[in-house]
Amino acid sequence: MVVFSSLTPVFVAVLCVIIGFLFKSSQRRETRSKQERSDQTARPWVDEDLQDDTEISSKHNEGDDDWLDTTEEENLPHIPYTPIQYSATEMLERSEKFYSLMNLRRSVRFISPEPVPKQVIDNVIRTAGTAPSGAHTEPWTFVVVSDTDVKHMIREIIEEEEEINYRQRMGDKWVHDLKKLRTNWVKEYLDVAPYLILVFKQTYGILPNGKKKTHYYNEISVSISCGILLAALQNVGLVTVTTTPLNCGPQLRSLLQRPANEKLLMLLPVGYPASDAEVPDLNRKGLNDIMVTV
Amino acid sequence: MVVFSSLTPVFVAVLCVIIGFLFKSSQRRETRSKQERSDQTARPWVDEDLQDDTEISSKHNEGDDDWLDTTEEENLPHIPYTPIQYSATEMLERSEKFYSLMNLRRSVRFISPEPVPKQVIDNVIRTAGTAPSGAHTEPWTFVVVSDTDVKHMIREIIEEEEEINYRQRMGDKWVHDLKKLRTNWVKEYLDVAPYLILVFKQTYGILPNGKKKTHYYNEISVSISCGILLAALQNVGLVTVTTTPLNCGPQLRSLLQRPANEKLLMLLPVGYPASDAEVPDLNRKGLNDIMVTV
Repeated sequence: MVVFSSLTPVFVAVLCVIIGFLFKSSQRRETRSKQERSDQTARPWVDEDLQDDTEISSKHNEGDDDWLDTTEEENLPHIPYTPIQYSATEMLERSEKFYSLMNLRRSVRFISPEPVPKQVIDNVIRTAGTAPSGAHTEPWTFVVVSDTDVKHMIREIIEEEEEINYRQRMGDKWVHDLKKLRTNWVKEYLDVAPYLILVFKQTYGILPNGKKKTHYYNEISVSISCGILLAALQNVGLVTVTTTPLNCGPQLRSLLQRPANEKLLMLLPVGYPASDAEVPDLNRKGLNDIMVTV
Repeated sequence: MVVFSSLTPVFVAVLCVIIGFLFKSSQRRETRSKQERSDQTARPWVDEDLQDDTEISSKHNEGDDDWLDTTEEENLPHIPYTPIQYSATEMLERSEKFYSLMNLRRSVRFISPEPVPKQVIDNVIRTAGTAPSGAHTEPWTFVVVSDTDVKHMIREIIEEEEEINYRQRMGDKWVHDLKKLRTNWVKEYLDVAPYLILVFKQTYGILPNGKKKTHYYNEISVSISCGILLAALQNVGLVTVTTTPLNCGPQLRSLLQRPANEKLLMLLPVGYPASDAEVPDLNRKGLNDIMVTV
């Protein structure tokens, strides 16, 4: 007890140091998580209800909810907008015709190797480029691959990742036949289709002074642009299937030598449909299931 | 010193309890953040390179990278796909014509109050509904508002939030004139446009048994659908402006009585352009700036 008693001041001192250390480190952890939280909320142009992985650079570039950067817009002259106008009858006819055409579109996995005029692909990409984008940043890059070797390398990257995806799922109840699955990770169309269109979103831009430029809503903008691309392909009788190759983005970006600000969003194999092409007998929801009138 | 000495065992005991408590709480914090991390990675169908806020329900619904749920597809009969085919000349002509039409599209903020036939709007929404979607979930709801009172309530919700957004930005260097800004948070077109189309993404679906159904890539799917919607509007000579009202989602969802699985993605005021409509004199990037050929 005497020994213990004489040691207590030392004990207390050591314990105080330990407590101080633990307290400090727990405080630091809290500060950090608070900072992380405030970093996430300090994005006035990002909707709290939506998620967005846009990379932010300077405050000077903060976006507007109606997708036009006010600073840039204020410096621009305004011009009258004189669009085509149709009569009510013409509008109705045009709307029906366009709907009928678009309603024939299907995702097709059986693509003919028959060559497609490159000029048509050029026009289809031009059309995709007319999409609106947050602050008119046009944050898209369309990589059109027709080179046989590159197409094959893309196929190898995707099938390797796909096989991992499928094999990892094999424990699930719904997977009972390896052979049946095999057809799923083999993507013949990647070799066969005359064109593969790899759509990259630019998560940020580079200003002339080398600084980063924020690309607001880049994923939504590029997806809108892909919608217009699909309409343009359907309009000329070409087919595709909308794919988002799982976890292949970095490898494909590196293969195609795309810069660090570009991320793969979609891959569209494009061509004529194969003569024996089949599609699953799916139905679309009716108008009353997708539209609410107020 | 005697008093101090006799108190030391109590001191030590109290200190030990404090240390134990601090140590435990710091451990708990670490475990939690580890769990959060593993929750984020345990989504095999979500690309690690892309972000997605899709809500996941059961493993049975895991999506495929080519957007069709394999289980569902296997149960579906396949039918031959016999699309329209055009000659090379026709394709080129069609692609040029469609590009010219789409290239005339501009985001227009000056919309005429002139009424628009509802049937045209119906067809335009039908057309948007032909978009592809992850696992064919069709995760979209288009709320078409023509009611004057509801339009005005929408305007009030949006302008109130907008005013906060703009006022909070006032400290920034690029903001120097309140009057100039004022024009930005006043959105007259919300009252004036004959239709407001509020596009909701369904972050998950509800199965007949009441369980949640995963809606893969729902934001990308709905954005693609909006791209087709914009093309359909342009095709009939109607104008709109793509807006993403900041932080108004929950209020608008509640006003329009949309269910909890729906989140506002976009709001499109639709109508004829006002006779004095102006647009900023913007240019689009050239083909070589958006396309890379390999």
